[in-house]
Amino acid sequence: MSELINDFNNYRSRMNERIMETANTNIKRFFALDTTTYANGALSVKTKEMLGLVASMVLRCDDCIKYHLEKCYNEGVNHDEMNEIFMIANLVGGSIVIPHYRRAVEFWDELNQQGNHQN
Amino acid sequence: MSELINDFNNYRSRMNERIMETANTNIKRFFALDTTTYANGALSVKTKEMLGLVASMVLRCDDCIKYHLEKCYNEGVNHDEMNEIFMIANLVGGSIVIPHYRRAVEFWDELNQQGNHQN
Amino acid sequence: MSELINDFNNYRSRMNERIMETANTNIKRFFALDTTTYANGALSVKTKEMLGLVASMVLRCDDCIKYHLEKCYNEGVNHDEMNEIFMIANLVGGSIVIPHYRRAVEFWDELNQQGNHQN
Amino acid sequence: MSELINDFNNYRSRMNERIMETANTNIKRFFALDTTTYANGALSVKTKEMLGLVASMVLRCDDCIKYHLEKCYNEGVNHDEMNEIFMIANLVGGSIVIPHYRRAVEFWDELNQQGNHQN
Amino acid sequence: MSELINDFNNYRSRMNERIMETANTNIKRFFALDTTTYANGALSVKTKEMLGLVASMVLRCDDCIKYHLEKCYNEGVNHDEMNEIFMIANLVGGSIVIPHYRRAVEFWDELNQQGNHQN
Amino acid sequence: MSELINDFNNYRSRMNERIMETANTNIKRFFALDTTTYANGALSVKTKEMLGLVASMVLRCDDCIKYHLEKCYNEGVNHDEMNEIFMIANLVGGSIVIPHYRRAVEFWDELNQQGNHQN
Repeated sequence: MSELINDFNNYRSRMNERIMETANTNIKRFFALDTTTYANGALSVKTKEMLGLVASMVLRCDDCIKYHLEKCYNEGVNHDEMNEIFMIANLVGGSIVIPHYRRAVEFWDELNQQGNHQN
Repeated sequence: MSELINDFNNYRSRMNERIMETANTNIKRFFALDTTTYANGALSVKTKEMLGLVASMVLRCDDCIKYHLEKCYNEGVNHDEMNEIFMIANLVGGSIVIPHYRRAVEFWDELNQQGNHQN
Repeated sequence: MSELINDFNNYRSRMNERIMETANTNIKRFFALDTTTYANGALSVKTKEMLGLVASMVLRCDDCIKYHLEKCYNEGVNHDEMNEIFMIANLVGGSIVIPHYRRAVEFWDELNQQGNHQN
Repeated sequence: MSELINDFNNYRSRMNERIMETANTNIKRFFALDTTTYANGALSVKTKEMLGLVASMVLRCDDCIKYHLEKCYNEGVNHDEMNEIFMIANLVGGSIVIPHYRRAVEFWDELNQQGNHQN
Repeated sequence: MSELINDFNNYRSRMNERIMETANTNIKRFFALDTTTYANGALSVKTKEMLGLVASMVLRCDDCIKYHLEKCYNEGVNHDEMNEIFMIANLVGGSIVIPHYRRAVEFWDELNQQGNHQN
Repeated sequence: MSELINDFNNYRSRMNERIMETANTNIKRFFALDTTTYANGALSVKTKEMLGLVASMVLRCDDCIKYHLEKCYNEGVNHDEMNEIFMIANLVGGSIVIPHYRRAVEFWDELNQQGNHQN
């Protein structure tokens, strides 16, 4: 089991639970909207997760990148497709994205080494 | 012919020509890379243009949004798909994206009224 | 009647109507959430509009700034309070905020000259 | 004593001292301005710290968030008020703010568990 | 006389005067700091204006870009140097900078056509 | 040997190697462009690295800041010059840059203590 992936997912789960205990109604609605937005629709879940990933990369949010990388992996995005997403993110966002791209490659490698798709 | 679309495209073309006259080699390479990045590959042009659009929306660049809206239109992105892209952009980028979303809807309407796909 | 204020409000109203005609359910929910978030609660509407204004200034969104300036005006934010909000925005966001601050001062002047609070 | 709070405050204090040893006059003036801006004035310290917090959240700066959370805590911002600030930050800044919101909730919890207001 | 340059400078001057009439002490100090920061020191004015320009480009603020372009022009930054600044800005900030780069090239051309250095 | 500097450089080297193993042609071209952009030209390497540093600071990317700090150190940027760059970054980017400035001062101190210029 990858420590990098587990640490990320455990912290995220623990704090999301804490948020559900403490948040007000509007915040809970916002989180619900965050879930329904990525559901299958006119666009597939796979396409939506790729959109979420590229948005996260150009906005340079490591945790958001990790989250969507895992979703993309589970949706079957392959190596060549991922590299084309990485390129668009680097191009649009600029070289300032590169440190996040490095960490994305590391996380993507761990997802592929761990191997079990958890769709 | 839509004035909004024409004004955007004319200014863009005129200044890109001026850039090609004045830019150094690295800038020309950067522009070349901007073109090849969106070419058909492991991901289709349509998917790539959707990725370019969502990145442009969360980074809140009106001209980039217009450019990718026109490309998406020419690639056959339909109304329901576009709304799902708009939603992801609004959700990830937040309500600060809304003024850009308003202008995107206006430009998207003009593209649809003008009607001729220029793929 | 101020042309600057009218043009802003008319375009905003017209495009918001168009959005309500064309948007999907999630986008409509997002807009509804945008409304309920600024409603009176543990924090007053006045405080919330000041929070919305400072967030809009550091994110450098002119339309968002105009919108919250008008709301702040209607909630009775006075000249000295507004200057302290402007200062926090300039300090946190940096000198890159100054051009937006200039346009904010112009819009704030017009709101005060127009004079009728439309709470 | 919370390790999270202590580590943050100790590093901040240590480096601010080092800055005062090494900085030029303009930087020292900038830091002085950072202090006077949040002083009691037309707006209360509490309101200003809430403004500083929301600005820090939409700009997604974890250290700035922690700093203003502690100040808000010391100014007596209560749980319901804090949730409304969190909601405005999430709404305006978008879901990209969520990982910072998670860390903010964790820090806010620690401040409340530690309990001693250090105003 | 270039209309583009005049319109920019006139609006900027008019609103800066209005700011000096209406701003509080902290804002005036912030503006004073903005002036002294770019004064000749360990780094030359020319180098500082190039730093101000690249910062403005990657943060994508058209008015800030125009301001520093004019200063760079007056400090004698030449065509080849300007292109290397443009390249660093495009590279670091990404293709999202390109629309701002187009407008920068247009303004830079006008400065060179107008010709009179106003140092 | 500074652990802070070594850890940064080792991770960066390791992941850049991994990127060269896995990236597509466009990404490799983008990285090549990143190298040639900072080469000696109309502007000196020293000036370009200062431009890269200020851009990295206002965009608030810690790894990019560290990278350009080390390059600036190797190009002989002195203490007074560095403080003027820091000031421009803080002024343009605002107080949100301060936490990154703290970490920059720490890294700059380590570079100076380690002492061996590796130009």
